[in-house]
Amino acid sequence: MAKNKPRILLCNDDGINAPGLAALYEGMKSIGDVTVVAPDAEKSAVGHAITLSDPLRVWDFKKNGEFFGYAVNGTPADCVKIAYWALLDEKPDLVVSGINLGSNTGINAIYSGTVSAATEGTILGIPAFAVSLTTFEDPDFSYAAKFARKLSENILERGLPKGTLLNVNVPPAKEEEIEEIKITRQGRSNYHEHFDKRVDPQNRVYYWLTGKKVQLEDDSDVDVDDNAILNKRVSITPLHYDLTNYEYLDELKSWKITP
Amino acid sequence: MAKNKPRILLCNDDGINAPGLAALYEGMKSIGDVTVVAPDAEKSAVGHAITLSDPLRVWDFKKNGEFFGYAVNGTPADCVKIAYWALLDEKPDLVVSGINLGSNTGINAIYSGTVSAATEGTILGIPAFAVSLTTFEDPDFSYAAKFARKLSENILERGLPKGTLLNVNVPPAKEEEIEEIKITRQGRSNYHEHFDKRVDPQNRVYYWLTGKKVQLEDDSDVDVDDNAILNKRVSITPLHYDLTNYEYLDELKSWKITP
Repeated sequence: MAKNKPRILLCNDDGINAPGLAALYEGMKSIGDVTVVAPDAEKSAVGHAITLSDPLRVWDFKKNGEFFGYAVNGTPADCVKIAYWALLDEKPDLVVSGINLGSNTGINAIYSGTVSAATEGTILGIPAFAVSLTTFEDPDFSYAAKFARKLSENILERGLPKGTLLNVNVPPAKEEEIEEIKITRQGRSNYHEHFDKRVDPQNRVYYWLTGKKVQLEDDSDVDVDDNAILNKRVSITPLHYDLTNYEYLDELKSWKITP
Repeated sequence: MAKNKPRILLCNDDGINAPGLAALYEGMKSIGDVTVVAPDAEKSAVGHAITLSDPLRVWDFKKNGEFFGYAVNGTPADCVKIAYWALLDEKPDLVVSGINLGSNTGINAIYSGTVSAATEGTILGIPAFAVSLTTFEDPDFSYAAKFARKLSENILERGLPKGTLLNVNVPPAKEEEIEEIKITRQGRSNYHEHFDKRVDPQNRVYYWLTGKKVQLEDDSDVDVDDNAILNKRVSITPLHYDLTNYEYLDELKSWKITP
């Protein structure tokens, strides 16, 4: 690492007041010059949304009377953009997004605001990762925060290739229970959704989305992010935002479509 | 194609009243049993957002006194989900999203609500594509609509592989000016953003995001989506939603990170 403290930008999608972000901040502050820029409210499942039609506002957000970070009335991707282009004096050396409450494995990676903040960092040419704790129940962020710091030190030393971010999922276990750190691929999963149809007091129909994630691989495929978590491993998946399915290019060319 | 008319679901991100969707509907109705389920208002750049914290409502949307489709107070991905799980009696054979006003090439594919609706179709196991007209000025959707129909016929006959959708961008040109149909990869581009800082009448600061897309490849790389468009070619990029950077797995394993 450089002599100067690295500049680290933190973001999340659970909102600037979320306990997971506080835990991440505590974990990271000893290794860098940390700035928090995060949504003013919960923005889960916003995907890679950016705000074009509404003005963005930025507030100083205080905790216990002290400045904690900048709250933005936007999405996680907005936060990273506005930090980079308008709020920070210098480009950050690392973007860390999280600690998310709930897993971002499998198909969740494409719906995740947490992942999108890290993706935005990568688009801006900054090494970045997203970190999630894979439980909603009685969350203890302490090991995830410690591991985020360790991984940050690795990334600051080694770098990441252009266009690649890391998606980290940490199981709800104590440090001594963690079996290993597993490098994984994004699992294939989808949701069996249910729209709960109700009638409001004005007799109008409305729906609540509720769904159950269905994993499409066998539990024994140890290279899948979801399976790593089940087996008390930390999952790290390298992601990129080139969505091209290169393997299908030739087949599609063989269709010989004409104007 | 099957004897029965194929069932085709249309969606977009510009909203159910957008001219691009009307043009797509006109283009598709002769080849299938078409249902429109689209956002009630413009939802550009929403990425792959889904609505979890608010109830969804669905209205019958009429045009010239006749039922045109279902308007949903949600995102493009919400529309495809609620169509599949709650509104349609039978699974669609094809999902088409568009015709978007403005290009969805390069990095725009990851911000695009239009692409996300097609992605959602693919996640649900339905062949799907997104189609965009790459101009904002004086848009003429007629050729794009005609080409969408032609491509639909191809897809209905041949199918698409699991997990793969097509991202189609059509240049603003007349049919006879189109040079060819080019199978491309997603271009590498990013945005040089500017946050226009202003002060409102209450003396509070706010920002408007405004940016300029910067392409990172040479103009001569004919396999890039943006370059195809510049050269009056229709660009078709096969996309998938497995974001794993497989090429980087081994390198990352060599870090040998421990818990």
